[in-house]
Amino acid sequence: MKKFTSVSDVENLQEIIKKALQIKENPHSETEKGKGKTIGLVFLNSSLRTRLSSQIAAQNLGLNVLTLNAAQEAWNLEFADGAVMNGDTVEHIKDAIEVLNQYCDIIAVRCFAGMKSKDDDVNENILSQFEQHAKVPVISLESATRHPLQSLADCITITENWKKESKPKVVLTWAPHIKPIAQAVGNSFAEWMQEMDVEFVIANPEGYDLDKNFTKDVKVIHNQEEALKDADFIYVKNWSSFDDYAAMPEVKENWMLTAQKLENTNAAKVMHCLPVRRNVELSDEVMDGKNSIIYQQAKNRIFSAQTVFSEILDEIDSK
Amino acid sequence: MKKFTSVSDVENLQEIIKKALQIKENPHSETEKGKGKTIGLVFLNSSLRTRLSSQIAAQNLGLNVLTLNAAQEAWNLEFADGAVMNGDTVEHIKDAIEVLNQYCDIIAVRCFAGMKSKDDDVNENILSQFEQHAKVPVISLESATRHPLQSLADCITITENWKKESKPKVVLTWAPHIKPIAQAVGNSFAEWMQEMDVEFVIANPEGYDLDKNFTKDVKVIHNQEEALKDADFIYVKNWSSFDDYAAMPEVKENWMLTAQKLENTNAAKVMHCLPVRRNVELSDEVMDGKNSIIYQQAKNRIFSAQTVFSEILDEIDSK
Amino acid sequence: MKKFTSVSDVENLQEIIKKALQIKENPHSETEKGKGKTIGLVFLNSSLRTRLSSQIAAQNLGLNVLTLNAAQEAWNLEFADGAVMNGDTVEHIKDAIEVLNQYCDIIAVRCFAGMKSKDDDVNENILSQFEQHAKVPVISLESATRHPLQSLADCITITENWKKESKPKVVLTWAPHIKPIAQAVGNSFAEWMQEMDVEFVIANPEGYDLDKNFTKDVKVIHNQEEALKDADFIYVKNWSSFDDYAAMPEVKENWMLTAQKLENTNAAKVMHCLPVRRNVELSDEVMDGKNSIIYQQAKNRIFSAQTVFSEILDEIDSK
Repeated sequence: MKKFTSVSDVENLQEIIKKALQIKENPHSETEKGKGKTIGLVFLNSSLRTRLSSQIAAQNLGLNVLTLNAAQEAWNLEFADGAVMNGDTVEHIKDAIEVLNQYCDIIAVRCFAGMKSKDDDVNENILSQFEQHAKVPVISLESATRHPLQSLADCITITENWKKESKPKVVLTWAPHIKPIAQAVGNSFAEWMQEMDVEFVIANPEGYDLDKNFTKDVKVIHNQEEALKDADFIYVKNWSSFDDYAAMPEVKENWMLTAQKLENTNAAKVMHCLPVRRNVELSDEVMDGKNSIIYQQAKNRIFSAQTVFSEILDEIDSK
Repeated sequence: MKKFTSVSDVENLQEIIKKALQIKENPHSETEKGKGKTIGLVFLNSSLRTRLSSQIAAQNLGLNVLTLNAAQEAWNLEFADGAVMNGDTVEHIKDAIEVLNQYCDIIAVRCFAGMKSKDDDVNENILSQFEQHAKVPVISLESATRHPLQSLADCITITENWKKESKPKVVLTWAPHIKPIAQAVGNSFAEWMQEMDVEFVIANPEGYDLDKNFTKDVKVIHNQEEALKDADFIYVKNWSSFDDYAAMPEVKENWMLTAQKLENTNAAKVMHCLPVRRNVELSDEVMDGKNSIIYQQAKNRIFSAQTVFSEILDEIDSK
Repeated sequence: MKKFTSVSDVENLQEIIKKALQIKENPHSETEKGKGKTIGLVFLNSSLRTRLSSQIAAQNLGLNVLTLNAAQEAWNLEFADGAVMNGDTVEHIKDAIEVLNQYCDIIAVRCFAGMKSKDDDVNENILSQFEQHAKVPVISLESATRHPLQSLADCITITENWKKESKPKVVLTWAPHIKPIAQAVGNSFAEWMQEMDVEFVIANPEGYDLDKNFTKDVKVIHNQEEALKDADFIYVKNWSSFDDYAAMPEVKENWMLTAQKLENTNAAKVMHCLPVRRNVELSDEVMDGKNSIIYQQAKNRIFSAQTVFSEILDEIDSK
């Protein structure tokens, strides 16, 4: 694996999931693999699970970890090419990246969508600079349009929870929120599900269809009740409008996932990437109920990261 | 030791102090004990000594350390059970704890009193959630009503500085401050001193009596001069009113500890948990004088933490 | 080496540079040297290169690292001796230092000029407290008037890039900026160049002469074109006025370094300590051009720090 910013960096998804499950069985089997190498974890945004699971994964592999909360600990970054930097930005992102090239064997970065310019976000105006200027492998810790380490953890979790021969029905359902949230997790989950052996549908209100570049031919249903019928897995997530970018068109029905809505499913397992707004996106009853596999999903973030770091180290060592 | 949030988690205080002094003699005697295990240090508030001493203690035991400045690095936390999270809180504390359960073998947390609701603070509205939801041992790095790692360090320090057979007289004396401060250090010191073989009295102005649940039958004197007479140890600390919660009733006398006030003591050793407001709580002369054992006390924070972590690791290993 | 706060702490600069280049060849040759010892990295200001390169250097030597972002993670510090701390400062710097003495074998600190009081800055009101109160070796991570780890990296970089027998011409040239910046990097570079076997000149506009205590007899030229003629190395850096402290007297000519200005040089290598304001201090064309050795310079920060830490550890071990 040369880099890890989307599902297209994975050659064989089933193999990767298998490896991740082996690592979960024995997370300390490769404690010397990263010895003498350094991974830089650069956070341009908040993080709990990604921050901690990446550190654990790196430690399990013997990697040195440098964590940088860029905005608070370093300098205000400029992202525009050719900018005359006479304003409040102090360091250009490409200089920061070139310096990270000198210090790190792997660069991992979290760079959320700004939610202001659709073009900037769709074009991954920050991650693209890392892809362009980094001379070492780049790993996304969630970018403007994707969250691949989350999606890999999701695939691991679904695999652990489905032992039947038939395909499970997996429903990604939109959930309410109080402010405009990026489409990254939704996009990413949609991409990865298309690589999994599942029956996948997306449920969201009118006006909330995700970018077709991610959902492609996936069936999109605007009626939640219809979509959830016979579901085996329900992935709950909010996102704001893609078409009318970052807008929040009014939704008349209540899309919060409740215990009552689980009744017409196939005892569906409930997933969420966290953090979750309880009693807005889903009810306490669902969150704390026996259908939830949300904390298991959070745990699998460790093995998702460790698998990716391990694959990247293989690539580095092969040179 | 199953957890460490108050003196009641210690089975035999003298044994623990003895162990701490052995660790101080040889802090690198158990460098493999925590290998492959992870302690999460969660800070909901500022910290210097606790932050650094806990990291050193963990490193001395070979533990991996994850430090999380929750408010700045992760998400704004919700503490109310059943909350409809449609405001400015992004993640419920119980979900954060459940995730920490997946990532850590030990969870340590600093959660100061909010000083707004007496009920919330007395009931430890944050620590109690950790005690309820954590599935791994919980260690307090100071909570609303107690600071047990500090108190253990205090006991170690007193033990090091008292070689006579007689009981030393230990005085906890209130000191002035400019804003309402929690009672945690005072409460905690009072609890631990009742387990030590000392003559213990508390001196504070009228209106500043600590919660009876902590001080029990300890003699409380409202005249500082009288209380300090023949003292062997003086513990200086401010706290705000407990009865009229978080208020600061007027105090006519100047309770700042000065060199002159030490004259009627038994050449008393002076203690303070730090940070201290010089020339408000105590004078420069006392802070920098030969009676102060305050920096030794700060150093003992390492061995206090290392002893507790070591005891908790024993418990984990015994399962 | 007993401490490292200026060039005067280096006994033999050529030897130190030679050692640094050996470390660069083989950075993992002393991984046991710092074992069981702890370095505290205290940041009172922002940092990217210093933060990361110091951590890498420490890890390469097997040192434990404690990083403290003092303002955000600990307490608001008081710097005035004898202060009655009844304002918004919570802990006196000397108490913080005394505690660090208990916790660390080496203390490294970043404490920028406040740019408000010339006296405070010239007298190093913060670093001087570390030098006075620290009982373990102190390393400057940039103080009010000097940035010696940067200057050592600069010497390493010049040495790597000059293989001729003749002396290279090194020009420190002032560059435009939009706000008052400290003289520390300029001062420090001037001091170190006087110890190097180079022809050294400083170019800056009228009103921007550096403190004579640092520049001594170095030739100062107020015409940039004249100064750059035949230069082999150009060090670009802004600073505000020293005489009219922190002022920014108007400059009529444009001192930004451009590709065109390089034409009259001896194909000069361009240096900058970073962060740099592109198209203000120097043009994109220079920054991204083949004359720039700026990222190499950033990389050498690792070996500068590792050499100093290693020398300090030798001193500790010799006791």
